[in-house]
Amino acid sequence: MTDGVQVIAERSGTAFRLPRGAILTVTDPKGEQVADLLAYNAADVREVISSGRTLDYAETISLTTGHALYSNRSQVMLTIIADSVGRHDFLLTPCSIDTFHHFYPDLKPHRGCFGNLAEALAPYGIEPDAIPVAFNCFMNVPVAADGKLRVLPPVSKAGDHIRFRAEMDLIIGLTACSAPDSNGGSFKPIHYEIETVADQAAVL
Amino acid sequence: MTDGVQVIAERSGTAFRLPRGAILTVTDPKGEQVADLLAYNAADVREVISSGRTLDYAETISLTTGHALYSNRSQVMLTIIADSVGRHDFLLTPCSIDTFHHFYPDLKPHRGCFGNLAEALAPYGIEPDAIPVAFNCFMNVPVAADGKLRVLPPVSKAGDHIRFRAEMDLIIGLTACSAPDSNGGSFKPIHYEIETVADQAAVL
Repeated sequence: MTDGVQVIAERSGTAFRLPRGAILTVTDPKGEQVADLLAYNAADVREVISSGRTLDYAETISLTTGHALYSNRSQVMLTIIADSVGRHDFLLTPCSIDTFHHFYPDLKPHRGCFGNLAEALAPYGIEPDAIPVAFNCFMNVPVAADGKLRVLPPVSKAGDHIRFRAEMDLIIGLTACSAPDSNGGSFKPIHYEIETVADQAAVL
Repeated sequence: MTDGVQVIAERSGTAFRLPRGAILTVTDPKGEQVADLLAYNAADVREVISSGRTLDYAETISLTTGHALYSNRSQVMLTIIADSVGRHDFLLTPCSIDTFHHFYPDLKPHRGCFGNLAEALAPYGIEPDAIPVAFNCFMNVPVAADGKLRVLPPVSKAGDHIRFRAEMDLIIGLTACSAPDSNGGSFKPIHYEIETVADQAAVL
């Protein structure tokens, strides 16, 4: 028993509360679509997801089932409890009007995931400057032996998903990514579902 | 004509203003010693160095001479204008009391670069929560083909250095790193020198 599947339309974003113990499932319904995810402590939004802390503790950039996502205060915010893809990015910040100017000078600029997240998070008192590196679900950014980064199409297929358990009361920001290269050249929706602790008990 | 070489004692940190156009030279005087570097816009410290923006624009994690270090607002804060080492890290956050508990449970905990930076930056109105991933000069963190990270001794030798030009008026945080693994098992000072635009003109 949940509120069911929520849809994030292509090139848009949203924000919502995710209580401690709740499970968030992020699904790529059509395949090859990235979803940028941010997390803030609902009780104090200055505490925020931290790529640097997470990569340090995990000792890998290949985060998947069993890994914890840490805050800038070294607290676990989310644990990845299932992952049908196994390839996500935690190096890059959300695409923005500036990254569109840089990478796609011939395309009509878009405010990108950064702009979408900034608007969605504003009601929670979170400023644009407080948007850090996001956990980019399904984003495929291999690091070559010489350090070079490439943004390749996601390896996710239709219906692939990643599931997180909230380890504290959180504000989540989540997008259907807007950048051509990150999404195999086309823009698709992202689906998500929240199961609260009560939802999980009702299933038992 | 500069104020000369400044010394950051082992396992400590400092902060200072770096005006636009000034050149900052960070030197490893004894070899195998890391210096965590942070940068904030002196006119608005909510604008801060961003690993995610920088890696995105550079399309590599191997940053060296010619690369720009960007802020969270996609503005260039610093340009690397010389680099005798060629291996630095921009993935990990400064070591802290929490990382000491995690990685060195048998050692006496230390507040680490994070605590040193927090104290040094406080007079500039910068809170601990506003400390992001640092540009870790001389830190040697190779990424394996499977994504695994290792923290190896720096490849820097005595006298090696990296030079940055400030592209805006900045507040800089800088440390002599406190974590055993990052520094080849021993703790050494870091030297730095600032050449303002006037200093540079006086040399001509």
